[in-house]
Amino acid sequence: MGEPAIERLRSTVVSKLTDVPKRILIGRALRSDRLGETLLPKRIALPVFASDPLSSVAYAPGEVLLVLSIAGVTAYHFSPWIAVAVVVLMFTVVASYRQNVHAYPSGGGDYEVANTNLGPRAGLTVASALLVDYVLTVAVSISSGIENLGSAIPFVVEHKVLCALAVIVLLTLMNLRGVKESGSLFAIPTYVFVAGVFTMIAWGAFRGLVLDDTMRAPTADYVIKPEHQGLAGFALVFLLLRAFSSGCAALTGVEAISNGVPAFRKPKSKNAATTLAMMGLLAVTMFCGIIALAAETKVRMAENPARDLFHNGVPLGADYVQNPVISQVAEAVFGKGSFLFVVLAAATALVLFLAANTAYNGFPLLGSILAQDRYLPRQLHTRGDRLAFSNGIVLLAGAAGLLVGIYGADSTRLIQLYIVGVFVSFTLSQTGMVRHWNRLLATEQDQAKRRHMIRSRAINAFGAFFTGLVLVVVLVTKFTHGAWVALLGMVIFYATMTAIRKHYDRVAEEIAAPEGPSDDSVRPSRIHSVVLISKIHRPTLRALAYAKLMRSDSLEALSVNVDPAETKALREEWERRGIDVPLKVLDSPYREITRPVIEYVKGLRKESPRDAVSVIIPEYVVGHWYEHLLHNQSALRLKGRLLFTPGIMVTSVPYQLQSSEAAKRRARRQQEWNAPGSVRRGPAQVRSKESTEHKS
Amino acid sequence: MGEPAIERLRSTVVSKLTDVPKRILIGRALRSDRLGETLLPKRIALPVFASDPLSSVAYAPGEVLLVLSIAGVTAYHFSPWIAVAVVVLMFTVVASYRQNVHAYPSGGGDYEVANTNLGPRAGLTVASALLVDYVLTVAVSISSGIENLGSAIPFVVEHKVLCALAVIVLLTLMNLRGVKESGSLFAIPTYVFVAGVFTMIAWGAFRGLVLDDTMRAPTADYVIKPEHQGLAGFALVFLLLRAFSSGCAALTGVEAISNGVPAFRKPKSKNAATTLAMMGLLAVTMFCGIIALAAETKVRMAENPARDLFHNGVPLGADYVQNPVISQVAEAVFGKGSFLFVVLAAATALVLFLAANTAYNGFPLLGSILAQDRYLPRQLHTRGDRLAFSNGIVLLAGAAGLLVGIYGADSTRLIQLYIVGVFVSFTLSQTGMVRHWNRLLATEQDQAKRRHMIRSRAINAFGAFFTGLVLVVVLVTKFTHGAWVALLGMVIFYATMTAIRKHYDRVAEEIAAPEGPSDDSVRPSRIHSVVLISKIHRPTLRALAYAKLMRSDSLEALSVNVDPAETKALREEWERRGIDVPLKVLDSPYREITRPVIEYVKGLRKESPRDAVSVIIPEYVVGHWYEHLLHNQSALRLKGRLLFTPGIMVTSVPYQLQSSEAAKRRARRQQEWNAPGSVRRGPAQVRSKESTEHKS
Repeated sequence: MGEPAIERLRSTVVSKLTDVPKRILIGRALRSDRLGETLLPKRIALPVFASDPLSSVAYAPGEVLLVLSIAGVTAYHFSPWIAVAVVVLMFTVVASYRQNVHAYPSGGGDYEVANTNLGPRAGLTVASALLVDYVLTVAVSISSGIENLGSAIPFVVEHKVLCALAVIVLLTLMNLRGVKESGSLFAIPTYVFVAGVFTMIAWGAFRGLVLDDTMRAPTADYVIKPEHQGLAGFALVFLLLRAFSSGCAALTGVEAISNGVPAFRKPKSKNAATTLAMMGLLAVTMFCGIIALAAETKVRMAENPARDLFHNGVPLGADYVQNPVISQVAEAVFGKGSFLFVVLAAATALVLFLAANTAYNGFPLLGSILAQDRYLPRQLHTRGDRLAFSNGIVLLAGAAGLLVGIYGADSTRLIQLYIVGVFVSFTLSQTGMVRHWNRLLATEQDQAKRRHMIRSRAINAFGAFFTGLVLVVVLVTKFTHGAWVALLGMVIFYATMTAIRKHYDRVAEEIAAPEGPSDDSVRPSRIHSVVLISKIHRPTLRALAYAKLMRSDSLEALSVNVDPAETKALREEWERRGIDVPLKVLDSPYREITRPVIEYVKGLRKESPRDAVSVIIPEYVVGHWYEHLLHNQSALRLKGRLLFTPGIMVTSVPYQLQSSEAAKRRARRQQEWNAPGSVRRGPAQVRSKESTEHKS
Repeated sequence: MGEPAIERLRSTVVSKLTDVPKRILIGRALRSDRLGETLLPKRIALPVFASDPLSSVAYAPGEVLLVLSIAGVTAYHFSPWIAVAVVVLMFTVVASYRQNVHAYPSGGGDYEVANTNLGPRAGLTVASALLVDYVLTVAVSISSGIENLGSAIPFVVEHKVLCALAVIVLLTLMNLRGVKESGSLFAIPTYVFVAGVFTMIAWGAFRGLVLDDTMRAPTADYVIKPEHQGLAGFALVFLLLRAFSSGCAALTGVEAISNGVPAFRKPKSKNAATTLAMMGLLAVTMFCGIIALAAETKVRMAENPARDLFHNGVPLGADYVQNPVISQVAEAVFGKGSFLFVVLAAATALVLFLAANTAYNGFPLLGSILAQDRYLPRQLHTRGDRLAFSNGIVLLAGAAGLLVGIYGADSTRLIQLYIVGVFVSFTLSQTGMVRHWNRLLATEQDQAKRRHMIRSRAINAFGAFFTGLVLVVVLVTKFTHGAWVALLGMVIFYATMTAIRKHYDRVAEEIAAPEGPSDDSVRPSRIHSVVLISKIHRPTLRALAYAKLMRSDSLEALSVNVDPAETKALREEWERRGIDVPLKVLDSPYREITRPVIEYVKGLRKESPRDAVSVIIPEYVVGHWYEHLLHNQSALRLKGRLLFTPGIMVTSVPYQLQSSEAAKRRARRQQEWNAPGSVRRGPAQVRSKESTEHKS
């Protein structure tokens, strides 16, 4: 038997072999197991969700010092107080979110909370805020990661923007190809990072307190020329507030866990809450530890190091590279270029990149939830829809890349845009939670429960107040420094999503089915079938066969006379084969196909308006895009036009050419693709069930 | 009644108003009249087809002098002899093509001649040659046009490439929008140009011979430093041959008329032949006239004017701009900046741009013929298929633009690539004609006819020999100067077209219908219909209604459980409305739509392999691309996948949303679009009839 035959056989065999197991995997019976796999134990969930908040301690402390430096080195002694403020805030936020996690285990996160309790406007605001935030997470984390890597590998810092963009491209490709976000893969660098930082703190404390030897950061004997000498009163307060709001960068990504509840092992909420607490504790300790060591080792940083940092009376000049606090401290504690120093630098960079990757997972996740509420195209709603996700990912990467480019991959400048979004969603979701408890309290009778609720409400209320306060501070202190860009981004997202929702609503209204047995206007009485014929070959014969099976009220074959000779031949063969379907030939003076057919069909409709016309088109199915260019073009165009003629139904009868096998296989491969964020999203079924419980 | 209702009414009224006259225009009855309009009288046909060959006298003479200058000004006195050679060649070619026009009035031109008489390979070679030629016509004509314009407006020359590209873009847009190539619009500049040149020659002759006053070109007192002093023997002959083959540029575009026969008024062939003769006569006279005047007014040109032209012993240097011969002569005869000088310069430029435009018309024309023979995608074959033509036009423009960019819009350098293609097709088509006559002579008895044929054959034979000789000369003298690029282009076109043809043949073979009543493998026994339901609304109700009308053997509604709540609601409404079609709901653990449906349908096929499954999909029809992004996406993807599953037919039941009116109107506007080259192509009907006469 011939090549093609063999090929056909082979591929059917293949499909047999692949179909069966697939159906087993997906079919009802084993689904729960399948889901089991994807559910995360705490020890894995922590790194998966916490890489973002934990990694932020890599830059947050530095930002605090940077701002303080404006008032000169004397202001550095405020840093512990700012650290304390951040810690308090962190505890507040974590405490509040533990409430969210219990109340909304469905993974809707802040968006859902705000949406259900404060109405769609608030929900949409949160959504826009989060979307902007994801973009900034990518930009900031990667930039900062590059800076940390640079402290070990100078080359990287010299080509900052290039490297940052490279990482973005890498992450994007990874997520487009669809890497299955595997917990264990995330765990290693995160734990290495955490362990590294703690070792550093411990060893530093040991050397400082026990051995009592002096550790000096590389910048220890630099002198800072304060931009504003002897700042006092309001100006000083303002500066401290700015420093504080920079420090708040440490809180970014806390809400991640509350979005990921469905991915936790049972008892989901409890586990999530515990993880949240652990995460908060770790973050806080690391943050304070680094601040303390920075003070101890006399790290000196300035917003414009080139101009404001002096060494032996001379400014350091443009080519001085200011290393991040964490690496300066590590250098002081472990010693420059020591093994641990390098490991920590690498781990820091890696965990920061992972943090960026979480945005790649969160973006489509949020997208699918928004799509469910019709703020984004429906198809984002369905899982494993590669195309839809790809668009989201590319959008995210594009925006982040743009920011990195504009701000020269300078984490300090990018952080000015950051945080706004975070605190918008913090505040709104906490406010929403208060409403939530009020609603429950209105009905709840059980005293124990009531007490518990009142406690929760108190926590959320304080959270709402505190985060709201911070939001104001952030806005006031950072607006001119770039926060306005973030706000602009939010406005754009908000506007787009409202427009999309409007469109969907308009359409829904337009197509709403009338009550009672649907009106007759849409219900034709008879069907007249028309089979389009170009030549007589297998595809057309198949189309004819199918058309006959359809037993419509009348059936005719239709051909367009583009070349008289061909038409003549067609007529003759029609006779010869004795095909028992009347063949009608349309004339086409200008060798067109679409127009005559459309005109003819319109004619049919005019004659008997209460009939529907079914146009049956034989189609080749080919495997490669370039083949596609060579076939069906006129059929496709005709189809496109026919759709605009009312009372028509268009049927394609496909005929699979051998080459189509290629495409089939490709499609099958794409099916295996798993969308980013599928792990943290957890099984869909569960999610939507719970969400509906809470929506109703 | 509401906005939308009004809108709907309005648009239906509009369609009423536009449909009726359109059907009248296109319908059988009045077609001949309609065609009548498009047929061209000789006086219009001449400018339409001859703008290309006539315009080439604007650069051909200059090229001759340029080459001669290599041997120094002394070689200039060979120019008359070269002119004579070109004239002889021109007469030969014209005489030969007069035979073609009579023998092949179908507009197939050289391609058809070579194809029918020398077989597909030769045909395809000619086709590739012509395609390359069209590209070069655009590049050369526009560059030269810019140079001529520049002789009047210096700015243009200073920004040569930019201006050239601008003109290309302009022409491209014009042709994409679909300008109806109107004869009269072409006539004016062409006739102005011809008249201008003749006035110049006449006035020049009068001043020279009668008034006997000396006219001096602006370059008259420059001295040429010959690159090769005192060239003699073979070297000289070679140089003269090179000069001659440059002069042959005057012959480009002669074949245009033979492609355009169908566009002529009856008696087509005779009129075409006459026009051909007129064109030849005009071209020759102008060519010789300009050469003569150039000699008289002592025009001095050099290949590298900056280096080889001296004024008072000093080289002119880089910033010297060498004006085309025709403008130098015009300056000498009419006087710099005189009214006539400016008019002529403008007319020359304009006619050259028109020449470029003819390529825009010829390219798709040839394309449609090649498509008919399945060397190019089928859809190029049909008329008014905007998309197909657009591709061709963009391809042409892109290639030309590239050449212009690479060669700095320098007509002299571009001409080195030119001509090869022309003479390939000349030679092959003439050879083909000889075969043609031989074939006829084999059967023909009538002596008078025989004598006539023998005479024709003699002419074509001489033509074939002469053009073949020139082809060799061109190849030998110009290969290294750039002819190889043209050859490369030809090879690429040839390879592509062979590949496409191969593909079509393979497919044709694969789908060839078996003899006798077609085998049962493709013929299912029963049809099982499945209507996809997402929600209950007008589109789905309509789809259900149609599905019922289809009276297939079994019918069920199919929905995918993506969100349990929604599904529950759907089930309830289904009950409530008492829809008498069983509703089947598929579970989708991963919130997918495509996969479960595919699996289910495959399952159906497995159960009863001899049944066909008809999947009916309700579709929204919207007006704008961005709306399209918001609808049908999953439906479309599902459709795409279904086509690969054998034994399926996919039916879309469109539901036109109000916004679809916009798209409808757009589509209608596009229909009015007329493809470039439609005039010169003449009515399709006639064309294909005649062609079939001659093919049979």
